[in-house]
Formats: sequence, structure tokens, C-alpha cells
Amino acid sequence: MAVESPRELDSLWSASGHEEAFTDLDHLFYPRNIAVVGASPKGGGFMWGGNSFIEGSIKLNFKGKIFPVNPKADNILGIKAYKSVRDIPDEVDLAIFSVKDCVAKGVKFVHLFTAGFSETGREEYAEIEKELVALAREGGIRLIGPNCMGIYCPEGGLAWTNEFPRRPGSIGFVSQSGQLAGHFVIEGSAYGFRYSTYGFRYSKVVSYGNASDLQSHDFLKYLAQDENTKIIGAYIEGLKDGRAFFEEAKSITREKPIVAWKGGETEGGSRATQSHTGSLAGSYKIWRALCRQSGIIPVISMEELLTTLAALQKLPLPQGTNVAILGGAGGGSVTMTDAAEREGLKVPHLSEKTIRALEEFVPLQGSSVKNPLDMMGAFFRGGQDALIKTFTLLKDDPNIDALIFLQMAEMYVRRGGRAFLDAFIKHLLECIKVLEKPTFIVLEGGRG
Amino acid sequence: MAVESPRELDSLWSASGHEEAFTDLDHLFYPRNIAVVGASPKGGGFMWGGNSFIEGSIKLNFKGKIFPVNPKADNILGIKAYKSVRDIPDEVDLAIFSVKDCVAKGVKFVHLFTAGFSETGREEYAEIEKELVALAREGGIRLIGPNCMGIYCPEGGLAWTNEFPRRPGSIGFVSQSGQLAGHFVIEGSAYGFRYSTYGFRYSKVVSYGNASDLQSHDFLKYLAQDENTKIIGAYIEGLKDGRAFFEEAKSITREKPIVAWKGGETEGGSRATQSHTGSLAGSYKIWRALCRQSGIIPVISMEELLTTLAALQKLPLPQGTNVAILGGAGGGSVTMTDAAEREGLKVPHLSEKTIRALEEFVPLQGSSVKNPLDMMGAFFRGGQDALIKTFTLLKDDPNIDALIFLQMAEMYVRRGGRAFLDAFIKHLLECIKVLEKPTFIVLEGGRG
Repeated sequence: MAVESPRELDSLWSASGHEEAFTDLDHLFYPRNIAVVGASPKGGGFMWGGNSFIEGSIKLNFKGKIFPVNPKADNILGIKAYKSVRDIPDEVDLAIFSVKDCVAKGVKFVHLFTAGFSETGREEYAEIEKELVALAREGGIRLIGPNCMGIYCPEGGLAWTNEFPRRPGSIGFVSQSGQLAGHFVIEGSAYGFRYSTYGFRYSKVVSYGNASDLQSHDFLKYLAQDENTKIIGAYIEGLKDGRAFFEEAKSITREKPIVAWKGGETEGGSRATQSHTGSLAGSYKIWRALCRQSGIIPVISMEELLTTLAALQKLPLPQGTNVAILGGAGGGSVTMTDAAEREGLKVPHLSEKTIRALEEFVPLQGSSVKNPLDMMGAFFRGGQDALIKTFTLLKDDPNIDALIFLQMAEMYVRRGGRAFLDAFIKHLLECIKVLEKPTFIVLEGGRG
Repeated sequence: MAVESPRELDSLWSASGHEEAFTDLDHLFYPRNIAVVGASPKGGGFMWGGNSFIEGSIKLNFKGKIFPVNPKADNILGIKAYKSVRDIPDEVDLAIFSVKDCVAKGVKFVHLFTAGFSETGREEYAEIEKELVALAREGGIRLIGPNCMGIYCPEGGLAWTNEFPRRPGSIGFVSQSGQLAGHFVIEGSAYGFRYSTYGFRYSKVVSYGNASDLQSHDFLKYLAQDENTKIIGAYIEGLKDGRAFFEEAKSITREKPIVAWKGGETEGGSRATQSHTGSLAGSYKIWRALCRQSGIIPVISMEELLTTLAALQKLPLPQGTNVAILGGAGGGSVTMTDAAEREGLKVPHLSEKTIRALEEFVPLQGSSVKNPLDMMGAFFRGGQDALIKTFTLLKDDPNIDALIFLQMAEMYVRRGGRAFLDAFIKHLLECIKVLEKPTFIVLEGGRG
């Protein structure tokens, strides 16, 4: 951000090809400047919002101008403030708040942060929301919200809190809830494991609340043509135009995966979406049918959303649902098998050829060459050699599409200390490349 | 443990009332001495077992004698070793290994640690297991195992690893898997939260593997009459005598809750239990019907097992399945409502009286006085007063049996720093006593 002498944005835009492909929502994700109505010289309110939009964009080096708007302040966070949107000397691409002033000013997008509209369930408030949308549309403005956190676009320098990472990435996220979008960005950016530091990075994230004007399918459409977005996540409470959503999703999933979490799948949850974003959640069955027919991957928790996105980003797609489990002592393998089959995977017999070849180097006692395979003893004794032999056999086994590698880290530490475990994992990560099938590594009880 | 001059155990036994109520398995959980066959002067094998039994019991100050048995060693871990079980000069209550020698010696219980019996699926090995059991029973010995970790009894001074805590408690656990029992003890003993350090402690834990002689219902029966055991957990793969198990469980759950995790609920999982403990897992539907009719609480993961036991230990039982959710910003409340209703709870409307009273101090904008309730704003503004008013209303609301209190810790930190959050939680824990209904506190995203 350069408040005193804003840099021309042309270079940024040509560099990322936006000059040619300037689509509807570009001024939303890459505004040349933003007006933040409701910023305060005394600091923000009790939640994200107001000043936190300014702080977030400062952290992300927003290249355009920021215009804090407050009738009672001259200066907010060191930036010159204006009494009203109308007083701003430059053009405004994105304003947060006050529709009437924005129409007068010719603003392109308004992000209506504030709550208290249709989600209250009171007719008079729902009516105001409708009027606002009508007012905005007449003035040529598109609305985000109300009752939402708006835009996080690292490349465009926008963020609704300075807790979000600066570096952009390839995950797009479309969410009615600002809370869950924020959690998703923050938890996702720290996602990872001891042996595989990870951390999602994002192309565009939008929290759009009541969706009174711009809808989920508008944002999906934008992410579909956005070259920086490779995988799309979504948290959706209601669809005001189910047909448009379905058609959009169906055409996108041929090119980019969509992983969607639906709020309001249960009766009580459905009532809750009405209070939250004024959404009619619709039936669970219809949503699941929509997912099946449009190719959307449905999830039901933040954990499942993050894990699914990580798998899509890091692993090849499996050719089928048959999985081999390379376990250790039996209880963990039994319950992992249950967990896999509950989710619709199969843990079938290995091919005869694989079983016979495994029997040559897997000791019978305390081990099993069935599936799940009890392989800890073999790995202890055979080291890297046993790993490569096993992965080569599984690679060529037509009964197996994917692998879950489940070992008790603690036992490796007991065997040879922390160094033994680290060496084993290092070998494993090398040997696993032989397999060429998606592999999930689970290390239990790693206290070492 | 006192190897040179073992203390008489009479005092311990009379103190805990064992002299009068000396039942079948007392010599198993409170042996006067143990023989550990397979201990090694060079240290343990690749897993728990061998020396780790000795190390575990040393840590727990086992009061009796320990006799390491190894034909090639004079001394193991500083303790005099014997060539064979027969050479041990004293009586032996519990031996780990070598049935024949134990019969000759008149041992009471044999814990058969080693694997390689019926779980291999080979008839000749299953035959050996049967012969061992027959041999033991003829000699008056009861068998634990084979293919298991045996006994953890803090009060008796027995543990199969020195990772287990010394202090005893009131949770009993019966598990065919030694791995899951071990995880359960270790993870459970560290279980807790920032504001509520917890940590389960255990009365008796038994890992009994293939259950070739002593069965799950034998151990349940023992825990039922054990005064130190208040709550019973279980991990079960197969029931060799389903009727006996059902009758035992049904009579126990009237007095003590049983929370059970069944391995092999799926087709693949069922095949896996055969390789693990030679168990026939039986059908999912029959298991669930058995739970319903006997009062067992079924769970399907370690996490659910731990959480359920914590709830049983800490909270009053709810009078019904209706739950109020006190949330914050909407997405979290919506998805928590979905999660609750998926598990069979209901998130119903509050009573008219409660709604009207709440409306007096809960601001409409950005809040909701429906259920789930969006209360963050009210708690920010009204502090302790708003908390007490809310809990008093929920206490008297006949529509509500339990409470899920779900707030974003991060927002409290943003509002007033770490100290504000800490003060709020302190108030909360005081105010919540008013409610007199089971309450689950969920603090999301607490990075402060």
C-alpha cells in the first residue's frame, strides 16, 4: 500500500494478464482503491471488520489507495480519513458500507459488512435488504453481502484481517460464513505434519453472507476462469438459484475439483441457516443428489474439508476405491479398516501373486500378509529393502488403488530412538515414490 | 518393588478389602509375585514386552517379587534371573509365558504375551492354542491371551510399560488389542484442555488378545464387583460367548456405565479381526442391537471413546436429548447444530418465556435469540451479568436438557487481549454452576 503516492496498477494487471481477460469481478478482487466506511480512530469493534480490513490490506501491501471514511476523524491508522464517501477525490472500485453515498460516487462494488437484515427473520429488515439491492443495482453497483466479511485476495492485496498470509496460492474458497472462511484460511495456512510441512495458500476467498445480490454461482464462475485457482472449496448454507448453481458446478468439476461443505443438512441446522444468512437450506437428500450429479465432493466438517483439499492438491487420483492398509499391531489396523469402509472404500484381498511374494520375507508370527497387512516386524528387520519390495508388489497389484500406511511411531522410537524413526521416515518418503498410487501416511502415538 | 526383601502383601490386601472379597481374578491384578519369561539382559525386543513388563512394574513400585526367567542370564535389570520357571524358589501367582513349566510350578495365571496362534488363520497354530488352553486348565491355570499385553493395575503395581502413570483412578478398561489399550492409557492420561487439565486415571486395564480362555465377560464381571472401578471402557473384536456377554453387560450397566468400541464393524474390518485376534466379529446390526438392549454406549473411535468417558466422569446425565447451543458468529453455530443432530440430539426452539426474557438484553443486530443462539455480542457487552441471566433462563427452560457453549476464543483475545479471555472463562466456569445441566464448552480458534 502506498497512501501518499499510489503506484499505477497497470503493471500489476498486465503482468497477471488481467488487461485482456477483464471479467466482471476483477474490480472486486483487484480494486484500484477501497473506501472503508466505519473505520475508527479508536480501533475496531469487537470483531473483524472496520479497521481490521485496513490492517489486513496494509499487511498484504495493497498497491492502491485506501480511504477510511468517518465523519468525526481526520486520520485513521496514519491514513487521511474522509467525512463521507462523496468527499473522496478519486474513483472508488470497492466500498465497504453506505450504499446511497456509493451510488452517488459511482462505486463498482459494495461489500456490505454489517448484519441485521433478512437473517433477523423480521419482514421490515428483509425489506430494507431488498431495497438496498434494488438501489445498488439501479446505480450499477454489485453487492457482496450483507452480513459477511467480503474479500481475501493476496495477489490483489486485500484481507479482512492481518492474520491472513501474504503469499498467494491455488486454492479458491467461496463461503457464506465469514467465521468459517476465516478459520479455514488460518487453520489451512498452518496445516501440516511433522514430516510434511504444508500450509495452504489461496488465490481468492470470498465471504458473501446473505447473498442478497452476488450468489455462490457467480463466484464459482469467476474462480472457474481464474488461472490462479486450481481447486475450489465452498461453505454453502442456501442456494437462491439451485439450477444455476448446479449447471455452473457441473461444468466446472470437469476441469477443477469442487469440495463443498453444506451448512444446514439437518433440521435444526437448516433452521440455524435462516438466522445466520437468511438462507433456506433445502433438503439433505437433494443436496447429496446435486453433488453426485454435478461432481461436487461433499464434506461435513472443517477437518474433512482440509484433508480432502490436501489430498487433491498433493496426490494423484486413485483409479478405484480399493485400498491396502500397511499397519502394525492389529487393533489400529482393524479400526482403520472399519474407518475406511465406513467412508465407502474397500479393503480387499491382495492378489495371490502379491501374497505369495510377501510371504517370502514377512515373518508369520505377529504379522499378517492379508489386508490390512501387519508389517511392522518386517520393516524393523528388513529396513529399506522390505519397504521397496512391498511398494513394488503393491504397485503391480491390480486389486489395489491406494495405500494407507499406518505405523506406531512410538515403537520405532523404542526400537532405536528418535534417530531410527527419522531415518525410517526418510527412507519411506523415498521408497514410496515407487508405488505411483495415492498414499496416506498415518503415524500414531509419536511422542518421541 | 523390593527384590531383596519383599514386603508382606497382607497389609495391602486387607487395606483394600481383598482378604474378604477374594475373587477369581484378584491374583491376576494383585499377584504376590510374577515370573517374566523372555526377559533379556540385552534389553527388550522391538515392542512392548519382555523387559518392558519389568520396567513398568518397577515404575509402579510393585510390592512383590519379580522373577526374570532366561536360560542364558544370571541377572536382568539388576534382578536375579532364573534358568526356568521351575527353578523359582517361591510360589508364582502370575507368569508371562511357558505354560508347561507353569503347570509344573503350580502357577495361578499365565499371561501369554506371544503371538502366532489362531490369529494366523492356520489350523496347526489354532490347534496349538487349543492344546495350550487345555493344558493350562488341566493344571488349574487360567490364561490371558495369547497375543496380548496383559495387565495394567496401578494399585497392584503392574504395568506393561513404564509410560503408564503410577496414580490409580476409577476407569476400568477391557481390550482385546494391546496397542489400543496402550494408546488409550497414554492418551487418556494426558487428556485435557487449557482451562481444564484432566487426565484419566485407571483402576484396572487388561489386554487379552485372542481370548482363548478368559473372555471379555469374565473381565467385565470382575470390574463390576471392583469397588475402585466406576466407569468401564472396552475395545472388543469378537465375542466367543455372546449370550454371557449380553447378560453380564445388561446387569452391569444398571450400576456402572460401559462404553464400548467394536473393532470389525465393517466387512473388511471383520476380516481384519480374524488376522488380529482370531475373532469372528459378527454383524454390525447385531452388535448395535446388543448395545441398545444391554445399555452399552457404542463408540467408533478413540476420540469418541475418550470424550464419552470424560463426559460420564464429569457431567450429570441429561434428562433428554434437547440441547441449546450458545454460539457466536453463525457458521460455527450452524455446523455445530448439524453435528449435534447427526448424532441424534435435537436443537429445538427455546420456550417462549426464555425467548422473551433474552430479547430484553440480547441486541437483535448480529445476534439471534433462537436456537442456536448467537450470543457473542451480548456476552461482550453484558459480561458476567449476561452469562448468569442466560444460564438461569436455560436452567428453567423445560425445552432444554443440555448446553453446548461454543465461542470463538480469538474474538475475545481481539476484544481485550489474553487477559480478557482468561477473565471471561473464569467467570464462565463460575456462572455455569447455576445451570445444573450438562454443559460442553467448545472454544474455537484459540490462538491467543
